[in-house]
Amino acid sequence: MEQMKVILSDSEIPRQWYNVLADLPTPLKPPLHPATGEPVKPEDLAPIFPMNLIEQEVSTDRWIDIPEPVLEKYLLWRPTPLCRARNFERLLNAPVRIYYKHEGTSPAGSHKPNTAIAQAYYNKVFGTKRISTETGAGQWGSALSMACQMFGLACRVFMVRVSYDQKPYRRIMMHTWGAECIPSPSELTEAGRMVLKQNPDSPGSLGIAISEAIEDVVSDPEARYSLGSVLNHVLLHQTIIGLEAELQMKMIGEYPDVVMGCAGGGSNFGGIALPFVRDKIYGKQVTIVGAEPTSCPTMTRGPFAYDFGDLAKKTPLLAMHTLGHDFVPAPIHAGGLRYHGMAPIISHLVREGLVEARAYNQLETFEAGINWARTEGFIPAPETDHVIAAVVDEARRAKEEGKEKVILFSWSGHGLVDLASYEAYLSGKLQPYELPEEEIERALKAIEGFPKP
Amino acid sequence: MEQMKVILSDSEIPRQWYNVLADLPTPLKPPLHPATGEPVKPEDLAPIFPMNLIEQEVSTDRWIDIPEPVLEKYLLWRPTPLCRARNFERLLNAPVRIYYKHEGTSPAGSHKPNTAIAQAYYNKVFGTKRISTETGAGQWGSALSMACQMFGLACRVFMVRVSYDQKPYRRIMMHTWGAECIPSPSELTEAGRMVLKQNPDSPGSLGIAISEAIEDVVSDPEARYSLGSVLNHVLLHQTIIGLEAELQMKMIGEYPDVVMGCAGGGSNFGGIALPFVRDKIYGKQVTIVGAEPTSCPTMTRGPFAYDFGDLAKKTPLLAMHTLGHDFVPAPIHAGGLRYHGMAPIISHLVREGLVEARAYNQLETFEAGINWARTEGFIPAPETDHVIAAVVDEARRAKEEGKEKVILFSWSGHGLVDLASYEAYLSGKLQPYELPEEEIERALKAIEGFPKP
Repeated sequence: MEQMKVILSDSEIPRQWYNVLADLPTPLKPPLHPATGEPVKPEDLAPIFPMNLIEQEVSTDRWIDIPEPVLEKYLLWRPTPLCRARNFERLLNAPVRIYYKHEGTSPAGSHKPNTAIAQAYYNKVFGTKRISTETGAGQWGSALSMACQMFGLACRVFMVRVSYDQKPYRRIMMHTWGAECIPSPSELTEAGRMVLKQNPDSPGSLGIAISEAIEDVVSDPEARYSLGSVLNHVLLHQTIIGLEAELQMKMIGEYPDVVMGCAGGGSNFGGIALPFVRDKIYGKQVTIVGAEPTSCPTMTRGPFAYDFGDLAKKTPLLAMHTLGHDFVPAPIHAGGLRYHGMAPIISHLVREGLVEARAYNQLETFEAGINWARTEGFIPAPETDHVIAAVVDEARRAKEEGKEKVILFSWSGHGLVDLASYEAYLSGKLQPYELPEEEIERALKAIEGFPKP
Repeated sequence: MEQMKVILSDSEIPRQWYNVLADLPTPLKPPLHPATGEPVKPEDLAPIFPMNLIEQEVSTDRWIDIPEPVLEKYLLWRPTPLCRARNFERLLNAPVRIYYKHEGTSPAGSHKPNTAIAQAYYNKVFGTKRISTETGAGQWGSALSMACQMFGLACRVFMVRVSYDQKPYRRIMMHTWGAECIPSPSELTEAGRMVLKQNPDSPGSLGIAISEAIEDVVSDPEARYSLGSVLNHVLLHQTIIGLEAELQMKMIGEYPDVVMGCAGGGSNFGGIALPFVRDKIYGKQVTIVGAEPTSCPTMTRGPFAYDFGDLAKKTPLLAMHTLGHDFVPAPIHAGGLRYHGMAPIISHLVREGLVEARAYNQLETFEAGINWARTEGFIPAPETDHVIAAVVDEARRAKEEGKEKVILFSWSGHGLVDLASYEAYLSGKLQPYELPEEEIERALKAIEGFPKP
């Protein structure tokens, strides 16, 4: 009987997160205050984030202890299994060994609780009473709802309108975990009302929802905002994925030639990749690939520039690959991959050549995902289908090159709450969506006059 | 840091199923041929089931080897974790230690693949080309769709109409795994047409869907029927749950005072319970409890009698607790617990006093399930909520008695594809549903004139 999984016991869970800021060959460009053009100071962010997370955001300590109460919640489902995709390998018939880190085993069904639990905990310690956030596909909103419930915090989620309508189950998850879920744009905020005035039928976007959530907390001293991706501390919390995977690979004497993840804001990809980026910085041979949609090709086609994280320009300016803060994504089904920007850490690593990006259209991603489900059983989230398409692509390259390769990737979540997208694909209703060239011109216009990184 | 889970490595998976027929103090009453009143012979069942499964159905071997190809598929998600529900314990504040076997980690989200994989394998070996089945909530139909895909068999699922309409996601899962899903009653079979003629708006029932699936295969020599619960071989396959749990409990030096499972047809309950029933037969002190809905109180209120397994009287007569083969269940949301009968093995054990049954209404079950989700994270299936209500009840008893108790139960599946039921509960739209006394009179009439067990 061949081994299919490498598992870790509770006592083997990593006790620290890995902070790549300690090892970057060149420093990250700092976030800038839009009014002054100067780096933002911790106190500028204080109305939005709790101070303990702001400190974590700028920390350059290599290892950061995972607090005991966070570990206790992690143990509800972590460590997650590292699985060998033997059945999928047979289908591909290429010289590859494929390992996936199964993040779909969490209660919310994705990697998102890794940071939701941590953020809820730090907010609780800081004294926050209520957290407000935005969500696209709903993976993040549901994860944060659960985490807030576990630490006794109130939670309000602004959910991108098109997902709110397409994905009622995500909303019900949030209610089941005791949170409030509001379709965005909403009448609750000035940012929302402004959009609705121009377009009462606006499908919404993450950029708009972020503006609403931030506006919602700055007027309430007991409330703070929480972001499910993009920021340094979010990627930090997600490194638990890669750290466990590293340990598990070591246990079976394997080291990956290629490490992959799908990338929306960058937290899942960063989670699996950063511990291996460290190895690469110190000389190890490893290819690290982020997979994104051709409809939202932030890293593959967006400029690296200072831009806002949201539509209403309420965030600091971040140095990142961006399609412009006014980007309105195509209604593709991978809602978690429709954000206009990419985490500054990931953007920086792309620029440094430590990480590369590849884009796939949603027809090839759903095809890959269905082949996965029919061989490995688990139905992937539409986001996860992107990395599976990248794995298929990598296996084809290995076959062409006649080179044996070990592939490791983050299977970021299951698709059981996103099944409508599979129905749309199976009934032939989906378009591939390539971003038109004019959209890049619009993006360049959106960042005109901003400082250059 | 307290331990939350006991996990087994791939190599520790049990290699045999446990067959309780080898240890029963008194023999099971045999299934009878309705025409002759004589015990059915294997050849009578040959048009419906493959001969290798018929042999397994009547085997009295205590241990039955799990074939290697079945083990290989099990390893996609098995062994499943045994988890300690420490957060739920704190909420209950009773002298109990609660362990749950997490069957929600399978690709289909429930325990059903344990037998689906085995049945698809045996059919493949036998030479079956197509399998037909019925499904209530859709847990079974989706599990069998996946299993058939993995072994290269075609699959047709007759899905109870009311669930087909309420649970589109289950249907999409079946499509994603390559199966055909037909709402029942349908125009495809005589049994379906008969029901539709009397009531074109029939919500359907498992009894009707079973009739349709059986009729569908008897006319096709390359097709066989598959049942997801009730029968001896199905419970046999599910004992992997209890066998793993037994091993895991032993590893931490625990033995349960109470073993619990929710019971619809009896396969989940049998799966966790039967290895402990064996201990009890040989003198061990252990309470074994099946939890069922007050709206379908098969064991708690239904007579023990010979009855058909389906509405159109196409099955043999089975000796079991039954609410009558013409039972039409209330539209409660635990679709997997609406079957009129109970597995002959479980019914026999209830009669022998080795197992007891308790009934809970759906308001108390959803309340228990939501408290579970808010403490332990995972959102249970509406079926699973029944055993959680039983755990709450047992904890209350332990508190009243001032007695320390170890509770072990099967957490049979997650509710992420059944979330509409949670919304209905949270918005106050659900009724408790107690079965009216007239329904028991109807049941007694339905079995009038049948042989007595």
